[in-house]
Amino acid sequence: MKASRARLKKPMADTVRNYTASVSYDQRLAPYDIEGSIAHAKMLAKREIISNKESAQLIEGLERIADEIERGVFLFDEEREDVHLNIEARLIELVGDLGGKLHTARSRNDQIALDMRLFTKDAIKDVLEALHDLRGRILDKAESHQETIIPGYTHLQRGQPILLAHHLLAYAQMFERDSERFRETLRRTDVMPLGSGALAGVPYPIDREFVANELGFRAVSANSIDAVSDRDFVIEFHAAASVAMMHLSRLAEELVLWSSEEFSFAEMDDSYATGSSIMPQKKNPDVAELARSRTGRVYGNLTAALTMMKGLPLAYNRDLQEDKQPLFSSVDVVTSSLQVMGEVLATLHFQTERMRHAAEEGFSLATDIADYLVKRGIPFREAHGIVGEVVQFALERGISLADLDLDQYRGFSEVFDKEVLEITVESALKARSETGGTAPEAVSRELMKAKKRLREE
Amino acid sequence: MKASRARLKKPMADTVRNYTASVSYDQRLAPYDIEGSIAHAKMLAKREIISNKESAQLIEGLERIADEIERGVFLFDEEREDVHLNIEARLIELVGDLGGKLHTARSRNDQIALDMRLFTKDAIKDVLEALHDLRGRILDKAESHQETIIPGYTHLQRGQPILLAHHLLAYAQMFERDSERFRETLRRTDVMPLGSGALAGVPYPIDREFVANELGFRAVSANSIDAVSDRDFVIEFHAAASVAMMHLSRLAEELVLWSSEEFSFAEMDDSYATGSSIMPQKKNPDVAELARSRTGRVYGNLTAALTMMKGLPLAYNRDLQEDKQPLFSSVDVVTSSLQVMGEVLATLHFQTERMRHAAEEGFSLATDIADYLVKRGIPFREAHGIVGEVVQFALERGISLADLDLDQYRGFSEVFDKEVLEITVESALKARSETGGTAPEAVSRELMKAKKRLREE
Amino acid sequence: MKASRARLKKPMADTVRNYTASVSYDQRLAPYDIEGSIAHAKMLAKREIISNKESAQLIEGLERIADEIERGVFLFDEEREDVHLNIEARLIELVGDLGGKLHTARSRNDQIALDMRLFTKDAIKDVLEALHDLRGRILDKAESHQETIIPGYTHLQRGQPILLAHHLLAYAQMFERDSERFRETLRRTDVMPLGSGALAGVPYPIDREFVANELGFRAVSANSIDAVSDRDFVIEFHAAASVAMMHLSRLAEELVLWSSEEFSFAEMDDSYATGSSIMPQKKNPDVAELARSRTGRVYGNLTAALTMMKGLPLAYNRDLQEDKQPLFSSVDVVTSSLQVMGEVLATLHFQTERMRHAAEEGFSLATDIADYLVKRGIPFREAHGIVGEVVQFALERGISLADLDLDQYRGFSEVFDKEVLEITVESALKARSETGGTAPEAVSRELMKAKKRLREE
Amino acid sequence: MKASRARLKKPMADTVRNYTASVSYDQRLAPYDIEGSIAHAKMLAKREIISNKESAQLIEGLERIADEIERGVFLFDEEREDVHLNIEARLIELVGDLGGKLHTARSRNDQIALDMRLFTKDAIKDVLEALHDLRGRILDKAESHQETIIPGYTHLQRGQPILLAHHLLAYAQMFERDSERFRETLRRTDVMPLGSGALAGVPYPIDREFVANELGFRAVSANSIDAVSDRDFVIEFHAAASVAMMHLSRLAEELVLWSSEEFSFAEMDDSYATGSSIMPQKKNPDVAELARSRTGRVYGNLTAALTMMKGLPLAYNRDLQEDKQPLFSSVDVVTSSLQVMGEVLATLHFQTERMRHAAEEGFSLATDIADYLVKRGIPFREAHGIVGEVVQFALERGISLADLDLDQYRGFSEVFDKEVLEITVESALKARSETGGTAPEAVSRELMKAKKRLREE
Repeated sequence: MKASRARLKKPMADTVRNYTASVSYDQRLAPYDIEGSIAHAKMLAKREIISNKESAQLIEGLERIADEIERGVFLFDEEREDVHLNIEARLIELVGDLGGKLHTARSRNDQIALDMRLFTKDAIKDVLEALHDLRGRILDKAESHQETIIPGYTHLQRGQPILLAHHLLAYAQMFERDSERFRETLRRTDVMPLGSGALAGVPYPIDREFVANELGFRAVSANSIDAVSDRDFVIEFHAAASVAMMHLSRLAEELVLWSSEEFSFAEMDDSYATGSSIMPQKKNPDVAELARSRTGRVYGNLTAALTMMKGLPLAYNRDLQEDKQPLFSSVDVVTSSLQVMGEVLATLHFQTERMRHAAEEGFSLATDIADYLVKRGIPFREAHGIVGEVVQFALERGISLADLDLDQYRGFSEVFDKEVLEITVESALKARSETGGTAPEAVSRELMKAKKRLREE
Repeated sequence: MKASRARLKKPMADTVRNYTASVSYDQRLAPYDIEGSIAHAKMLAKREIISNKESAQLIEGLERIADEIERGVFLFDEEREDVHLNIEARLIELVGDLGGKLHTARSRNDQIALDMRLFTKDAIKDVLEALHDLRGRILDKAESHQETIIPGYTHLQRGQPILLAHHLLAYAQMFERDSERFRETLRRTDVMPLGSGALAGVPYPIDREFVANELGFRAVSANSIDAVSDRDFVIEFHAAASVAMMHLSRLAEELVLWSSEEFSFAEMDDSYATGSSIMPQKKNPDVAELARSRTGRVYGNLTAALTMMKGLPLAYNRDLQEDKQPLFSSVDVVTSSLQVMGEVLATLHFQTERMRHAAEEGFSLATDIADYLVKRGIPFREAHGIVGEVVQFALERGISLADLDLDQYRGFSEVFDKEVLEITVESALKARSETGGTAPEAVSRELMKAKKRLREE
Repeated sequence: MKASRARLKKPMADTVRNYTASVSYDQRLAPYDIEGSIAHAKMLAKREIISNKESAQLIEGLERIADEIERGVFLFDEEREDVHLNIEARLIELVGDLGGKLHTARSRNDQIALDMRLFTKDAIKDVLEALHDLRGRILDKAESHQETIIPGYTHLQRGQPILLAHHLLAYAQMFERDSERFRETLRRTDVMPLGSGALAGVPYPIDREFVANELGFRAVSANSIDAVSDRDFVIEFHAAASVAMMHLSRLAEELVLWSSEEFSFAEMDDSYATGSSIMPQKKNPDVAELARSRTGRVYGNLTAALTMMKGLPLAYNRDLQEDKQPLFSSVDVVTSSLQVMGEVLATLHFQTERMRHAAEEGFSLATDIADYLVKRGIPFREAHGIVGEVVQFALERGISLADLDLDQYRGFSEVFDKEVLEITVESALKARSETGGTAPEAVSRELMKAKKRLREE
Repeated sequence: MKASRARLKKPMADTVRNYTASVSYDQRLAPYDIEGSIAHAKMLAKREIISNKESAQLIEGLERIADEIERGVFLFDEEREDVHLNIEARLIELVGDLGGKLHTARSRNDQIALDMRLFTKDAIKDVLEALHDLRGRILDKAESHQETIIPGYTHLQRGQPILLAHHLLAYAQMFERDSERFRETLRRTDVMPLGSGALAGVPYPIDREFVANELGFRAVSANSIDAVSDRDFVIEFHAAASVAMMHLSRLAEELVLWSSEEFSFAEMDDSYATGSSIMPQKKNPDVAELARSRTGRVYGNLTAALTMMKGLPLAYNRDLQEDKQPLFSSVDVVTSSLQVMGEVLATLHFQTERMRHAAEEGFSLATDIADYLVKRGIPFREAHGIVGEVVQFALERGISLADLDLDQYRGFSEVFDKEVLEITVESALKARSETGGTAPEAVSRELMKAKKRLREE
């Protein structure tokens, strides 16, 4: 019978064991658990709570277990509930009763809090790297499309012509904010909880700063009750990942649209598209669809974590065990999605002719004609009305604005002069030259700045 | 290179394979996939699309694969993306090129829709069984506590005395509604989609009713586009499971409260409690805490499924692949939670003396005293005011209502007569005898009815 | 000072009043509250708990208040917390102290449960009517497009040609399931909770069946604790509304796509489109965008309701007050969205020429050519491979399959004969004639059945 | 007919107007809309796009409208869709056609982005202030309870004795992290979007830095497409508010528990409690219950915002209109909940005797006795086992550890000596003196640091 069941007179029911055991998934934390235990063992010796020799033996045993796990020969056993008890049992096999001393001045409550923070810190670093790569790829693509013109859309209706580089830089902005958010979450995760015991601290002369230093934490937690019951950093991860996935879902949606026969703005590289089992002509944007769909998974994980924490009294409750699987899921989804979407984008072939044609045809310059009138003194609302009538006139004749001559224009307003015929896609782009606008010079400026910020991160 | 990549000139990138492969989890559908394929093979022969001999060979191969899977010797291969392709590849190994004919008049789109419905039907049946068991256990427990009196709470303040049986029957009502919801979901899931092809139906003289009959479906789907893109039944499962888990979370919360030293209303059986690694005196209600927490998982899965479907154009999109993991998670959580909580409840030991004492002390009869005044002609609001003053009086003296004598009562209203001293917990219970009330006879009536409904289900 | 504060010695703090008062929104329940009170007053007299004269006076007062509310002259006062207390206070103004007697054998806990159920029943009926209308409009539109051919999509790639009627009938199926779900929710909502008192029933000889009958309920609740703390029906409403909105969001997405210049499959009627304040040429599908977006509101309301209920101990807790605003929001969103989207669809102009052209061009018949090979004995997977090569060949030459001659076909397989040239969009449609397929006869059959079911509901 | 409908030949259907109009709620943005317009008008004059005189007239008109709104005499008209058009229409009434010029170099897309950011910045400042107040109140309460001892709980079972101050400081930590998150969100919100036009920038020589400076923004947005379609700041607000509400829900749960008869650890001030309409003896913690419940509202708003944004193609889509109501709801809920819970806590009366008694009785020192054995050389796991037996022994006799004598202890292990009898609640507290522990000196240290940080913010 397990020590932790000392007071209980019957063995645990099988259904309870199955229901409560976590080792099938929390074994993912094993490397962090061992890393933390080694630091703990060093500290116990430093403070003479155990002897140097005991500490060395414990560390040797732990390192051997780490090696067994890495080589895939460690056997995790459901009977031993969780990752901690599995490692402890093996340690006792290796070093005898001494293994039991490792739990001195420590509880599973602060131990799991430590493991989760070590894991999350690593996960955030991976996400930050994936974001860095993706942003680099977006900037590269933008750099090579500073002259590619596409229609800018609102309501999925063509609005005004823009540079493809400008469109891509909108995504660079989004993912840059994501990097910021993850860095802030990292900072708040980077707090060392060990030494909080079950909830109240431990009655030993421990050295928490030493442990924090060994493990690379920037600070130690300031309140033991908070330290064992806080999962803010998990929720923050889900929240930051949800926004990042939302951004990816928008990019994914556009890739799906652009890959359609109707748009034909882009074609995925054959290595990044999939075929159909029944329709041999298809080249499907499955990766984009899955990224879009997995957005829901991360939203769901966020919901799960928030619901889990709602209304929990202090301090530790077993409810907190449920922080793991959703976190692992969000970590895997956001990291892999950022990476694969980056590759899809990097290898994407844009149909620049087709895009430019779409940007030119129709009425994409209508706004600029209205602004032309405004600059000649017509109040905006009136100018808008006049151009609306011009558009209606052209629509009814099935022609575009470029087909109109000056006389036809003047039929709607005397203010029109021949300069109206000089409004082109290029002149429209060029006119939007203030910061954030789609003029080539403005876009180039922002591209340079974004590259510099990325380099310096 | 795979047939489905016929048009694509490059092999799939590894990141794409890893990102899109589903076999690591959809192998859970293998038995359903094979069951569906066998019915399909029979139908193809019946309609002479393939020969009887071909059909028999296919079925023999499929049965052998089913056996391999059951015995755990089938090797699922990530390279072969999903469960369908893994089985197909093995089938071709076993029966040669003929294996390719099984895909005649079928697409992965309608095949996966079929697998998902077969799986979900089975899952619902398991949930219904677990609900049936839980309800039986609640009714049994209620039956043996028809004389146990506990305080009824509102705002977690003691309100009026009630029977423990009455309290437990509230849960019986909740879980009975859950059974109803799951049965309705089952009915809508029980529709056979095969024959819908990729999206438009198939150009073969298939016999869908035959397949439906073979597989035990009540109907065939009426629209091929809907059939391949509908996941309502998955969402409905999550929604029904969310409500069931919510009910369990309320029960779990009460078990946690009742197990606290402060309440001490109930003690979990040693087989269903857990100890503490650092606090040997603890007997923790971990099962209840985990059930409460896993409620969040199911809510999150519901969010994931709803998000996945939002704004998807018809018909099939790869997004739908993400229906599986959240569904598997909800199925496992709700089934195991219903089962283990049923066992916890069945083995729970109620501290009936302590409960009764809590129901008697304090001011739990205040409402009945107000009603006593009302029956003597005092308008309710005024009666309420009078009893409020009586309570305040007793509170200030640190006594309970049972300690007051008639003179003290009459100090607040002349209407009081000696019958006020006859108001007891028993008389209060007995007075609430209409349907749904806590009077012993009313509770017994409802208990009998609930048992009858359960038996007849 | 209010009767309900009898025991409390200080007035309520202003911040508390502002935080807890609900009358600003629960006044929407006033008609139901009064309806319930009238039935309650009748019952009290029937059971001689009050006199007939008292009952008549109460009812007269209540009817006068109903009239004041309907005429908009009733002044709801925040000081009086909620709708119940506002009405009660006015009733006491009108009929004197007698007004206080209305609260006999009733609590705010069962009263609000009654109001919510009466409201929700009405709301569901409105939703059912809106669904009925929408389904009728879809069927009408389908009826007039039984010969319109559009591309069927998977992965937003053109797959196989289908009838527009078939596509629309997919939506008819979805909304028919929604009607079913709402009817089932209605049935579970249709249970009368009054008589449950605060939580335990009431100590009066009430007649609950009479009240249920007066108010048109099919049954009375069977357990008082459950009756005052159950909000399953609210959650069910949100869940059913979430699925219905999800369906609308898919339709909305398609309307947005079809309205784009790139698709140009449909044009919204001018009355149902909006313009742009700055781009006069735009005709925006705002209604569809808002329906898509408001889907999130209903999902959010579902999350709110589920979270509210998680882990609540029995019986009534003030938490339940928060059921109202999200419910009102979901009711309004789903009802208005169904209605306006029905109108948008009914007035939509399809560009049938353009659709047909899209269905014909490209490689939409590739599957049928593969099936042609299969019928000539080629295993499906091999046939798929051959057609993939044919498609690749055509793509490289920038031609479509219709441009290939028999010799070219035979370059890929000897099995091709001249009948391959007879595969057309029409023949492809016609071949999918089993139930659920897109063949004109199959579609017509399902249309008739759907109309019949709608009529009979 | 409205200018924006220039191309449309029919008036908007009433259902569409009702469905799309936002003025009923977006009028809340009016002060921000006017503030932004005034800055815009100044800039237009500075850059000579309009004359100084025109600018002055526009500003005078706008200020008059602001005054009308503040005095409550401005009539918002549903016919005029939204807040912008309502203000513009009134402006044209006041200053004539000139009013139309205000829309020069501006679109509703960048205008609403500006309004939302101005509103959100103010809202965050309010939340930060409410957090500051609440934290101050927690620290004050902790300061006055540095000697109050309560049981520390895990699994809602009494674990180890702690200081009430230590418990309260756990909440101070949580809300300090909330302040940090909101400050970070504020920084990202503090970016000026005006000048982005509909999506591409505007063809005028505007001065965005001037506008940013006038309105107190720290930066201008770097990409026009991102600027009009970004709602990250709204989602971030919801996410930060969700975590803050989650923290409040935990505090609320504890207040509800502590107010129960069973715990009786705290009593709410009469001004902050509510009574019962039917149970005069009740003193209900309604404020805490509502705070707990409204947590769900904010979670739901987060879900709504995330769902809204999922899969939206760039740039502006009408979907974004739905950002407002959930944001307003979250702002109101989180601000009022922080404030009222702060007041509840500040006026709360702790039953310190009762708490101390609960901390002393039972087995709260069991861990310390195990640690006592460990310090005498017994491995932790073994010590744990010994103490488990001691607890079992005492439980069976219905006595507490304090009742045991040395001989009884030595019956379990020879290692026990008389110092075991000196283990008291006080010695247990004192022993946990490292950073974060519950020792009086450690708690006092952290309290001082928290006060200093709060002061310096």
